Amino acid sequence: MERVAIIDMGSNSIRFIVIQVADNKSYRLEYQQKEAIRLGRGMSETGRLNPEGVERAMACLHVYKHMMEVLQVTKCIAVATAAARNAADGEAFIARIKQETGIDIEVISGEREAYLGYLGVVNTIDERNYLQFDLGGASIEVSLVRDRKIVESVSVPIGAVTVTDAFNLADKVTGAAVERCCDFVRKKYEEMIPWAEGLNLPVIGVGGTVRNLAKMDQAQTNYQLSRIHNYIIPRRRFEEMYTSIVKSNLSSRKRMKGLSSERADLIVAGGIIINTLMQFTGGQNIIVSGCGLRDGVFFEYYGEQYGYGEKAEKGPIVPNVLRESVHNYLLSADHRMEHLERVRNLALSLFDQLKRSHGATRRDRSLLEVAAWLHDSGKVVNYYDHARHSAFIIAHAPLYGMRQLEQLKAAFIAGFHHGISNKIMRAYRYAMMLTQADWKKVRQLALLLALAEAADVTYEGVVHKIDVADDEEAVVLSLRGKKGEDHSAAEFEMKSYCKQFKKEYGKPLIIMWQKN
Amino acid sequence: MERVAIIDMGSNSIRFIVIQVADNKSYRLEYQQKEAIRLGRGMSETGRLNPEGVERAMACLHVYKHMMEVLQVTKCIAVATAAARNAADGEAFIARIKQETGIDIEVISGEREAYLGYLGVVNTIDERNYLQFDLGGASIEVSLVRDRKIVESVSVPIGAVTVTDAFNLADKVTGAAVERCCDFVRKKYEEMIPWAEGLNLPVIGVGGTVRNLAKMDQAQTNYQLSRIHNYIIPRRRFEEMYTSIVKSNLSSRKRMKGLSSERADLIVAGGIIINTLMQFTGGQNIIVSGCGLRDGVFFEYYGEQYGYGEKAEKGPIVPNVLRESVHNYLLSADHRMEHLERVRNLALSLFDQLKRSHGATRRDRSLLEVAAWLHDSGKVVNYYDHARHSAFIIAHAPLYGMRQLEQLKAAFIAGFHHGISNKIMRAYRYAMMLTQADWKKVRQLALLLALAEAADVTYEGVVHKIDVADDEEAVVLSLRGKKGEDHSAAEFEMKSYCKQFKKEYGKPLIIMWQKN
Repeated sequence: MERVAIIDMGSNSIRFIVIQVADNKSYRLEYQQKEAIRLGRGMSETGRLNPEGVERAMACLHVYKHMMEVLQVTKCIAVATAAARNAADGEAFIARIKQETGIDIEVISGEREAYLGYLGVVNTIDERNYLQFDLGGASIEVSLVRDRKIVESVSVPIGAVTVTDAFNLADKVTGAAVERCCDFVRKKYEEMIPWAEGLNLPVIGVGGTVRNLAKMDQAQTNYQLSRIHNYIIPRRRFEEMYTSIVKSNLSSRKRMKGLSSERADLIVAGGIIINTLMQFTGGQNIIVSGCGLRDGVFFEYYGEQYGYGEKAEKGPIVPNVLRESVHNYLLSADHRMEHLERVRNLALSLFDQLKRSHGATRRDRSLLEVAAWLHDSGKVVNYYDHARHSAFIIAHAPLYGMRQLEQLKAAFIAGFHHGISNKIMRAYRYAMMLTQADWKKVRQLALLLALAEAADVTYEGVVHKIDVADDEEAVVLSLRGKKGEDHSAAEFEMKSYCKQFKKEYGKPLIIMWQKN
Repeated sequence: MERVAIIDMGSNSIRFIVIQVADNKSYRLEYQQKEAIRLGRGMSETGRLNPEGVERAMACLHVYKHMMEVLQVTKCIAVATAAARNAADGEAFIARIKQETGIDIEVISGEREAYLGYLGVVNTIDERNYLQFDLGGASIEVSLVRDRKIVESVSVPIGAVTVTDAFNLADKVTGAAVERCCDFVRKKYEEMIPWAEGLNLPVIGVGGTVRNLAKMDQAQTNYQLSRIHNYIIPRRRFEEMYTSIVKSNLSSRKRMKGLSSERADLIVAGGIIINTLMQFTGGQNIIVSGCGLRDGVFFEYYGEQYGYGEKAEKGPIVPNVLRESVHNYLLSADHRMEHLERVRNLALSLFDQLKRSHGATRRDRSLLEVAAWLHDSGKVVNYYDHARHSAFIIAHAPLYGMRQLEQLKAAFIAGFHHGISNKIMRAYRYAMMLTQADWKKVRQLALLLALAEAADVTYEGVVHKIDVADDEEAVVLSLRGKKGEDHSAAEFEMKSYCKQFKKEYGKPLIIMWQKN
């Protein structure tokens, strides 16, 4: 077993995480701490690190050093970004840290910062082409990603802390000040990232400002989940929030729903930097990433040590984001993997052969696959009602590569793997996020999973293959297996879903054992 | 590792469970099957087992035998009750089972049946004095429990299946037939359990009929959980359901909300037997137990092999139901036990010293203890938001010894262990089951847990002891630990709850380090 600590010292905050890598190579977050140190405060005037920020950082690092011993950390990777990079006394500060705590912090270049942020996103969000930004306290990294490869990447030295200071935006701001600031930011973009103008690609945002905007949107629209990663802020909502932020003074911002009072001073500058970027590039919505630099540091390290994908190929890029995170989560518990694999294969085979009847998409197929792999995960809570507990776990586990609504759909497909029941909607408020059409699709796919699970009810793989005749009048499943094996239990279980099948697919289901 | 299979062949249904006992002696349910075989159908006329029932039972037993091999069961305990006990061909049937499947089934006496049912209840419900009944297909076991010991126990040979047959109660019934049946049942009680008359003790009910009545009540009153064990059916609600059941014919019963269509024929007889018992003994409400005979079989076996309680004393009775189940659940995952124990001790110490300010009861103290032990259990779902996930797990885990509402309170106390947040109520619909007063108590206790957790934020036990001065004007916590140890992180974390403390306790919280 390994324990990897990652420290990310930015201009606004310092973060510390510890990830455990088990002997079977599964990894999971074990500890995290975060502190607003504001190292970059006042830097735009003085060119030096904020003295109180330096002491706050030292105090945190002493604690982290200590926690690394307590937690028996085997490897520490520490990086520092814009503040330490740009300050005249940055180097001396890093030396002091080394001397006082023994922690070796690497001051990384803007380019490497952007690259690590890119790794954090490309390995946790399933998009191929997008513009990514990571807004920190003293800089914004902007990267262009095409076909999951980073093709442009620039660190623009404007950040939420430094711009707040430079334009005096912490409290009440005048329209003229906002305009001046927007002009300044836009000129920086024109100068440093001219390739981003009018791109009109999906925009993925990283950093405290955009995370807090997501929280505001969730609080103000009564969103039923409180997860940030892969949340989408519609352009219109972003503009509404932006407008209300720049119009308010500090004390009324502190009372805004969802806005952290710690960030109420920086949010104007942050909002301007993002809004100007959105106008500059022409992006429609903002996809929020909860993963960024520190996740990128981990993905790079893990990929080098252990590799990703079925062949465990070395390298920093996860080939299939969704599959990797599901596989990793599965490894953390004691599962009957052969059963899961058989159920997954049968469910997908039913999906493919019944395409005409359900008309579901390739994405839906992925959701069915996730549900199949994780349909028994709820047993860790309680064997009884484990289908419903699996739904809870899938909705909340650290799975990547699905939109939030997709993750909920996968959750409910698994939740119905012992048949359709309304009880599940009774338990979870976020069930109301699905539309009637979503529920129809969930129920149709859930029945395929239920049939696949029933086919392996005895955990022995008696059903090797299911041939489907998807006729106008009826659906016929012909089960195939080894001659002489007892398949009565599987057949019996499968037949128990005929009634629900007819209801959801509008035609009868006939199940027979194929003689051969 | 051990895997224990238990088969319980009754007059109405047959049940099969497999419980895994891990190397660290923690046990958890791994598999279960249940089939309505109706072995006792028609027995009151013929005196013999129902021939179709016999074949259904044989088919099930073949499947179970097979599953025991697949699941690598190391020990099988199989028992048969009233039908096999009373039928003329019972013995021959048991011999046939042995011959065809190799499964050794023990036909147990009515007294032993009652005793095992008693073990299932006394080890999973935290009551000391009560009347217990277990209504099966061909008999009802009635036991009197005083101070957790069984003092009377009789198997009365009337059951849901046999009485349905004898009085022809499957479909539409006349008022006269109901009256005749009630008279018959009452006479049996007068004859066989005269000691139960007018007892006026809490009544705990076991068996399919009472479980189904609980489900009906939950469905008809929009109850937000779908858990049966330790659910309470109020006397008035029982009578309402009973009245509507005996008035309806089979087809309208099949449409009743919450009534299983499989049981719609037996529910009249079942209702009469229970209603007559309630009138006879004078019990007010029915506490429903989802655990019974098969759980009792397991508790007896496990207690003999491994023992219960801190000293692992051999014997079938769990000394502290709540503690045992929490401890068992904890063992099934990888936890920092020392941290949990410190947090538990500090939380309870704060509770005891602040009694005057919160005025909470001894039961509340137990709930705080459960929350303390399990406050980190949600990490198995996701480190992020783990407090809220712990709330989910505590609400759904197989914990015994708490009423359902108590279990929810313990869940929400743990859910707030990083501070009070309204988000938790957004996620779970069953949050609405708590009253304003419940929430107040939950928040007050949660803050004690949050303070205790904060005191051990570094997992090192720097805070050995907290002395509380609970003054009219303020609460002062004096922290004590080893001289020279760094306690700044703990102090800092604890102080972050001062504001919430003032809100919930109505006076300021002062935290200081005690010099000594």
